[in-house]
Amino acid sequence: MSRTVRIALDAMGGDHGPAVVVAGAGLALAHHPEKEFVFFGNSAQIAPLVAQHPALQSASRIVHAEIAVRMEDKPSQALRYGRRKSSMWLAIDAVKKKEADMVVSAGNTGALMAMAKFELKMLAGIDRPAIAALWPTLRGESIVLDVGASIGADAGHLVDLAVMGAATARILLGLERPTVGLLNIGVEEVKGLEPVREAGRILREKQMPDLDYVGFVEGDDIGQGKVDVVVTEGFAGNIALKTAEGTARQIGQYLKEAMALSVGTRIGYLFARSGFAQLRDRLDPRRANGGVFLGLNGIVIKSHGRTDAEGFAAAIELGHGVVRDDLLAKITAALGRSEREPQRALSGAAS
Amino acid sequence: MSRTVRIALDAMGGDHGPAVVVAGAGLALAHHPEKEFVFFGNSAQIAPLVAQHPALQSASRIVHAEIAVRMEDKPSQALRYGRRKSSMWLAIDAVKKKEADMVVSAGNTGALMAMAKFELKMLAGIDRPAIAALWPTLRGESIVLDVGASIGADAGHLVDLAVMGAATARILLGLERPTVGLLNIGVEEVKGLEPVREAGRILREKQMPDLDYVGFVEGDDIGQGKVDVVVTEGFAGNIALKTAEGTARQIGQYLKEAMALSVGTRIGYLFARSGFAQLRDRLDPRRANGGVFLGLNGIVIKSHGRTDAEGFAAAIELGHGVVRDDLLAKITAALGRSEREPQRALSGAAS
Repeated sequence: MSRTVRIALDAMGGDHGPAVVVAGAGLALAHHPEKEFVFFGNSAQIAPLVAQHPALQSASRIVHAEIAVRMEDKPSQALRYGRRKSSMWLAIDAVKKKEADMVVSAGNTGALMAMAKFELKMLAGIDRPAIAALWPTLRGESIVLDVGASIGADAGHLVDLAVMGAATARILLGLERPTVGLLNIGVEEVKGLEPVREAGRILREKQMPDLDYVGFVEGDDIGQGKVDVVVTEGFAGNIALKTAEGTARQIGQYLKEAMALSVGTRIGYLFARSGFAQLRDRLDPRRANGGVFLGLNGIVIKSHGRTDAEGFAAAIELGHGVVRDDLLAKITAALGRSEREPQRALSGAAS
Repeated sequence: MSRTVRIALDAMGGDHGPAVVVAGAGLALAHHPEKEFVFFGNSAQIAPLVAQHPALQSASRIVHAEIAVRMEDKPSQALRYGRRKSSMWLAIDAVKKKEADMVVSAGNTGALMAMAKFELKMLAGIDRPAIAALWPTLRGESIVLDVGASIGADAGHLVDLAVMGAATARILLGLERPTVGLLNIGVEEVKGLEPVREAGRILREKQMPDLDYVGFVEGDDIGQGKVDVVVTEGFAGNIALKTAEGTARQIGQYLKEAMALSVGTRIGYLFARSGFAQLRDRLDPRRANGGVFLGLNGIVIKSHGRTDAEGFAAAIELGHGVVRDDLLAKITAALGRSEREPQRALSGAAS
């Protein structure tokens, strides 16, 4: 029998607030019923929405929060006015107090990360958090990290990312020993690549039992699914992720225009609509919604701010899997096995 | 009357060597006849290929080179064995000696950059080179730089990139005052973004006559064509470019599979083939082939190594436009107008 997963939801996060969060929770509950929810936010807004889902109502409660963190605020501002009383803070606090197994928010990413660091603290030996994203590829899905938690990385941090990313891939992709690549650029002997090269050397020499390091990969290898885990620092990782999203949207627009070109293309579109439905499904950004914050003493899932109920449900399901298979314990064990301290000594200059 | 542009070609570069280079030159000549070519490389291989194109034969000559730079070699290796005798070196040397107006190579990017820096030297006041790429967008095309010449950038270098990129956009996109954005990530207050923020401050305060600085852009803005010129340091820029290429290939594969799904989709594909032809054309990587090396005392165009004759011809045409409208003089003038020295002083720490 599955254990019930207790989920704290920041009901005020994202562009659509409680409407999407409550409906998403309803969908996720229908999908896997072993869940309990606590909605944090404006109870006057949340209660009537929850009342529309009887199953959800009996599996959830509401904790009123006066304040909602705004999407446009800087983390420091959000911490100032939202500490101890915003829906985001209280949802994270529930994880800290072990009243919830995980928290999901579609709110301000920087504020969520800052509050989560502040409240949950980092795992022993990890200095900086990371965000891991599921990336659809021609072979299935890969884990890409860091997609924007911190900028720049020394070799030791990249090795940590490899270990944490591999643990995540074991759980989310069901792989025994995931393949891992370091994102790099093709030009050799360019200044600034030392940390990437050094991390590659460490990963190659360590021969870790938990991951199969295969070498450098380039940007065009991600979508081909060349490796299960793509490791990079957060600036390039965020730009890669957003660029892929933008390119998919751009090609979707081209395709729409191409199919509206003539009577022939419109007829063709009708005949081929099952194919287009499959394509739409594969390109649906909601399928891969949800970033997992790694390196923290607790499970925090970031949903895309613009997503709908189905996308938010996908983020909840992602967190559900992560909790069910105990990602935190697996990361801690893998970090122990990777014997981090000697690597640190090798890794040279700090970021 | 147009002036004849003299083009030095590294005939041995790229995956297909002289076959693609000679055929590409033939196509480019047919397109715009005001060209003269010098092929550098193995004359025994080049001569019979040129002999197949009478028009090309009368507009070109061959300079024999014993050595071809290998694609897999490091720049330092290539410089060691290829200096003064490789096809790549001799082609660049022709530009240095003013015997050619530009050089095109599909060879090893790092070696080409290293040799070009060594032979042509940098423009006054520019410390590091950049590669500018044409990026197809929903609004037409944008210039993205740097896509891989050097890693990391201080604020002063980013401002230089903005000025050089805007000059390139004026010529290649025919824009009077191109809009310019700095590539950034959405998370605020993250360490490491200082140079980007500082460059933004300088560009905003300067109000340069040659460019319209509009602020930060994110990865997904590139393909939407939000700005005419996207400025970033080379690591993130290269990863963005390659990731977009990989995503386009991935979606192309999805589309192929979707149209082979059933009899219905196959029939639909036939009806809609004019639309698919349009789509293929818009996604054709050959259309945007060719990176312009900026910051050097001479015009160097890098073609993709895997391209075919049509793609190589596009790279030649790109260089032709750059030479015809005198990019070097325009960059030098724009750098002068941007009064670089005071900015330098403002820009803080070196890279």
